[in-house]
Amino acid sequence: MMKDLSTYKNFYLDQLLGDTLPFWFPRSIDHQYGGYLLMRDRDGSLIDDDKAVWIQGRFCWLLATLYNTVEKKEEWLLGAKTGIEFLEKFGFDTDGQMFFHLTRDGKPIRKRRYFFSETFAVIGYAAYAKASGDAQIADKARQLFGKCIEYAEQPGLLTPKFTDVRPAKGIGVPMILINTAQQLRDTIGDPRCDTYIMKWIEEIERDFVKDDLRCVMEQVAPDGSIIDHIDGRTHLPGHAIEAAWFILNQAQHLDNDERLIALGTKIIDYIWERAWDTDYGGIYYFRDVFGKPVQEYYHDMKFWWPHNELIIAALLAYLLTSNEKYAKIHEQVHNYAYGHFHDKEYGEWFGYLHRDGTLAQTAKGNLFKGPFHLPRQEWFCWWMIDRFEKNKLLSQEV
Amino acid sequence: MMKDLSTYKNFYLDQLLGDTLPFWFPRSIDHQYGGYLLMRDRDGSLIDDDKAVWIQGRFCWLLATLYNTVEKKEEWLLGAKTGIEFLEKFGFDTDGQMFFHLTRDGKPIRKRRYFFSETFAVIGYAAYAKASGDAQIADKARQLFGKCIEYAEQPGLLTPKFTDVRPAKGIGVPMILINTAQQLRDTIGDPRCDTYIMKWIEEIERDFVKDDLRCVMEQVAPDGSIIDHIDGRTHLPGHAIEAAWFILNQAQHLDNDERLIALGTKIIDYIWERAWDTDYGGIYYFRDVFGKPVQEYYHDMKFWWPHNELIIAALLAYLLTSNEKYAKIHEQVHNYAYGHFHDKEYGEWFGYLHRDGTLAQTAKGNLFKGPFHLPRQEWFCWWMIDRFEKNKLLSQEV
Repeated sequence: MMKDLSTYKNFYLDQLLGDTLPFWFPRSIDHQYGGYLLMRDRDGSLIDDDKAVWIQGRFCWLLATLYNTVEKKEEWLLGAKTGIEFLEKFGFDTDGQMFFHLTRDGKPIRKRRYFFSETFAVIGYAAYAKASGDAQIADKARQLFGKCIEYAEQPGLLTPKFTDVRPAKGIGVPMILINTAQQLRDTIGDPRCDTYIMKWIEEIERDFVKDDLRCVMEQVAPDGSIIDHIDGRTHLPGHAIEAAWFILNQAQHLDNDERLIALGTKIIDYIWERAWDTDYGGIYYFRDVFGKPVQEYYHDMKFWWPHNELIIAALLAYLLTSNEKYAKIHEQVHNYAYGHFHDKEYGEWFGYLHRDGTLAQTAKGNLFKGPFHLPRQEWFCWWMIDRFEKNKLLSQEV
Repeated sequence: MMKDLSTYKNFYLDQLLGDTLPFWFPRSIDHQYGGYLLMRDRDGSLIDDDKAVWIQGRFCWLLATLYNTVEKKEEWLLGAKTGIEFLEKFGFDTDGQMFFHLTRDGKPIRKRRYFFSETFAVIGYAAYAKASGDAQIADKARQLFGKCIEYAEQPGLLTPKFTDVRPAKGIGVPMILINTAQQLRDTIGDPRCDTYIMKWIEEIERDFVKDDLRCVMEQVAPDGSIIDHIDGRTHLPGHAIEAAWFILNQAQHLDNDERLIALGTKIIDYIWERAWDTDYGGIYYFRDVFGKPVQEYYHDMKFWWPHNELIIAALLAYLLTSNEKYAKIHEQVHNYAYGHFHDKEYGEWFGYLHRDGTLAQTAKGNLFKGPFHLPRQEWFCWWMIDRFEKNKLLSQEV
């Protein structure tokens, strides 16, 4: 058994409340325009007062989730509320689609051809609706989830980036939607969630997981075949790892469903074999399934978030299987990540290391990084171990 | 005076014809579908048979330019011709705009919201028209140049990526158009070229060159003011360096115009101060004008092409000013670049190094790298020194 389960539990909660959250809260609340000011340098100074819509939704989700699960702190609830109000006022275009990038006072800078802003709004709205009991926001969360399903099932609704000569689909859509549905289900509930979660898991298993290659693809043709071109071959370990723990989470929800445990742990195995850098440590950002060069220049950099996701995935795999292999992976990634990404001086994590583990830049928040993957990891790992210990105690009492 | 001007001259021509060109030619000619197969790994093996439209135009330009200036080799002319034929058949959408990315057999994969495909087609068509004497292709080159002017002067013609909340313009457009017009002028001629070149140089000087900050911006507001947000602050040394040598080239065309020499060398000075990595050597890819973190993750990597551009710019600055400072910059960049990027085993250059100069990946060709910046540098430096020596000889004779 993992030696220090309760040490880890305390560590994660302490880090979350004593190191990660204080970097962002309360200073990021924008008292003038609402929402959050999150694009910050190492020491917390503001790099940019623009607002990335993804991260507005994500921070709202975090504060409401802490309120729902850690402590009923009024300041967290109020903090979540300002995010909801800002998104309600400024997040949506007249066609109902959400923007991607806003000015501090909510003017739209950019709308993208994806619906990830929507998925992060769903989890923010749902968590806040539970925290506040606001039925209107709960309705809105469910409506927005319905919109996400539409976008996913009718790809033509959003302007395509490519022609239809070489159709492709990404794992990002079913992956993120599993988590969106799980969050919705676990907060305010929605009858569509469980059916859709299983549908998206099946899609990932059928079309993206390649047992013959021991790999999980980032994009494939609509029939699941590999597109043997530079983009089609590029896979993103971080997305596959997220899919793995969302699937393991579903396995736990279904009374430790063995088939889903096998699927989730298999994905971890494949990614571990392909994406752990055995020379320098850390998870590579992009890889080519056949070992060829990839187009993205930062392919071998170490980004913070795949490490957060693997810390969760390996811990959950260990709790579900008691297989020491996953305890070892968890420990190895935990030690690498807290050793290399954590900023001991100002708190929180750096986001971007060179392949060899040296720091590439100091931003703690930008258009894509903010208070999400790291605090979610610390929160979820704390919560998961806590639940595991309580269940064990319960079964011992029985 | 630079010690080894004629050594450099011979070195560049030898490298071009004995090392760089043989990597690409003749093997990249696609005898089945026309055009070029350029996405290649270190050893020349094909990574992808797709065709990037930018690079189809660029390789066509290179082969025709070698025919026009180095030797009347029939195989170079035929090589250029297949590129023209491929672009004529498959390069253009029904609305007249060019595609960005095609399959091997010419089916469109992606069209982008820019007109860089068009600018590289202009120089390819113009060089080929001169080489072949084909009047129809010459007309087409001039028409396409007219189209580029329209796109540049009426930005609304192409679908915008951003809303109009924070209007911006990039140096890329006037910079690339100066070179497009210079190539057109120097091959088949066009009465619009000289006026437009001066207009675009004035725009760069007025709106992008910031003497108070000793910097050249990548994008600014329409009135030339700095947009103090993460993207607005990010500058791209490679683009500024290209602008510098296009301006110096224009200075030379205007009988060593002193004002333009001062402008071009000033840009080199600013970029040298800001973008040369004094720890590891090499030119940084992106920088923030105020030293803040940038959004692009690969900001401190060393890419091949800014080094090609600075080798040209510094050499041209030296030839025009006899200032030893530029001879030293030229030598330093030349030694770094041929020492780090050149692949001594298979020829040509690697494209992507980590900040510390170690190799990040092995691709010689992909969607953005191909036979252009390196062979253009070797060709232009050879040609420039040759012209300089002939002029000196001429003036001594007089």
